[in-house]
Amino acid sequence: MELLTLEDVYPHPTCAAVGSFDGLHRAHRYILSRCRTLGGNLLVVTFLPHPTRLKDLLFTPEEKLEALEEMGVEVVLTLRAEDKRLSAEEFMRVLQSHFQVKVLLMGYDHHFGRGRAGSPRWLLENYDQFPIELHVFPPMRYRGKVISSSLIRELLKEGRVEEANELLGYRYILSGKVIKGKGLGGKLGFPTANLSIPSLKLLPSDGVYAVYVQQVRRYGVLHVGPRPTLGLQRSVEVHILNFGGEIPERLKVSLVARLRDVKKFASVEDLRLQIERDIKLTNILFSDGLPPIEETSGRLQSAQRSL
Amino acid sequence: MELLTLEDVYPHPTCAAVGSFDGLHRAHRYILSRCRTLGGNLLVVTFLPHPTRLKDLLFTPEEKLEALEEMGVEVVLTLRAEDKRLSAEEFMRVLQSHFQVKVLLMGYDHHFGRGRAGSPRWLLENYDQFPIELHVFPPMRYRGKVISSSLIRELLKEGRVEEANELLGYRYILSGKVIKGKGLGGKLGFPTANLSIPSLKLLPSDGVYAVYVQQVRRYGVLHVGPRPTLGLQRSVEVHILNFGGEIPERLKVSLVARLRDVKKFASVEDLRLQIERDIKLTNILFSDGLPPIEETSGRLQSAQRSL
Repeated sequence: MELLTLEDVYPHPTCAAVGSFDGLHRAHRYILSRCRTLGGNLLVVTFLPHPTRLKDLLFTPEEKLEALEEMGVEVVLTLRAEDKRLSAEEFMRVLQSHFQVKVLLMGYDHHFGRGRAGSPRWLLENYDQFPIELHVFPPMRYRGKVISSSLIRELLKEGRVEEANELLGYRYILSGKVIKGKGLGGKLGFPTANLSIPSLKLLPSDGVYAVYVQQVRRYGVLHVGPRPTLGLQRSVEVHILNFGGEIPERLKVSLVARLRDVKKFASVEDLRLQIERDIKLTNILFSDGLPPIEETSGRLQSAQRSL
Repeated sequence: MELLTLEDVYPHPTCAAVGSFDGLHRAHRYILSRCRTLGGNLLVVTFLPHPTRLKDLLFTPEEKLEALEEMGVEVVLTLRAEDKRLSAEEFMRVLQSHFQVKVLLMGYDHHFGRGRAGSPRWLLENYDQFPIELHVFPPMRYRGKVISSSLIRELLKEGRVEEANELLGYRYILSGKVIKGKGLGGKLGFPTANLSIPSLKLLPSDGVYAVYVQQVRRYGVLHVGPRPTLGLQRSVEVHILNFGGEIPERLKVSLVARLRDVKKFASVEDLRLQIERDIKLTNILFSDGLPPIEETSGRLQSAQRSL
């Protein structure tokens, strides 16, 4: 029997995935991994920055590009807000004529083009005009929950980072420049680095989180909370455990588990005792290294019990 | 970065390709090879036997199953003529509930279910009811020609086997039981085996063809032509070159190139001379082994010039 390779039919299939890809969660990654198996070039078409949303984004534009790069995406076609004027027909013509797109992947509910006229259904209704290999993806579930950027945002806003991470397929990341803080933690014996996070990036709800600090490969305790001196702006401070080195200019922190709510303390000593407790809990949680994402909730519960 | 595998989202994606798959040509094979890359089980859903066509089929039912088996298909769901009563909804429910189909692949113009109500477009219009990963395939071209079973049938009926083979992606096969012939060829010094080909199988137009006889791994000269004693039925006879062994009970012959039309001869000697010429041409054609399918036309022309 003769063997047929993809090249026989499609010399260089360019595969385009179209979507917002905020957070590049499990379902997004699944779609991109599908592209990968097709053996062609992978083009991602996405708005950058997000055309309407100005806050609560899971990704800054830089983070989105970095994540796509890590997934092996060859080309990103970035659409800007003014590109919303492009009609669905014009959009398809750009993909087919300019990029020689042979396979188009999109979520069942994705819309594109002026007035959101384009959709998978629209494509099949206009198939004579745009005959293309079309892969349509249904809502995907993980442990019964439909994976979506909106649900992940909701979970993070409620502080449920362990569940958000399960849907993301990785641990939610906060990254930013290290800025000078008030140095209060340092006086207590727990020096912290304050992170400057872009305002469009979603912060998890106020609270204390066990984290992994990527550049220095250390665990840490992160505090997200109100900073009275800055009005509504919230501060993000991380204390890196067992670290005596120079703190890098930028930090990238993976949120692993939520340890507790923020609270007011009657005395500095009460605060110091609580921080010691947070550190102890974090050390127990990480005693066997970073837990697998799916086991984090369980490990946290047993760590809390053993404290 | 954490690596995501397909299993994280879809533990065992069953991938179903739905279609008639007559001839399992390049485009069919492309669709099935796409299934293969998804990493799940591969289910093919196809009518067996063909629900309406009673002749000119590129495959007998047995040949279709054999070809699907060779492509690594795990399960074939065979629909019979009476299954045409199944509505498109019922059809989808069988796929999703009984076979846990997660990915459905079909040609853009495929219809299924009672009254041909189901189609890729119908699926997207009823997506709430049947959320499924849907891959729709456009007409595929090979050297400018749209690959289709109908076109391949037309080409074979005109004797253009080299072109038909290019669209098939393999060489058209005739296979059947060896039956007793009149032994005329033997008397001339060119013993032939007569093949009994099922009546629903499409025969190429009358003529003489250079072939490859699979079981005995020899080249041969095949004659398709009228057999006056049998009315309209046509005979298929093959003379295997350089072969002195026992002819197997069944033969499987790949058609490589059309050498000439059938014709009447004034004398037995004229016939003998022509057969010698056919054999010489076949030997020149195959002097470097089986030519690649795409080069067969060119090789045949240069063989004819050098004769």
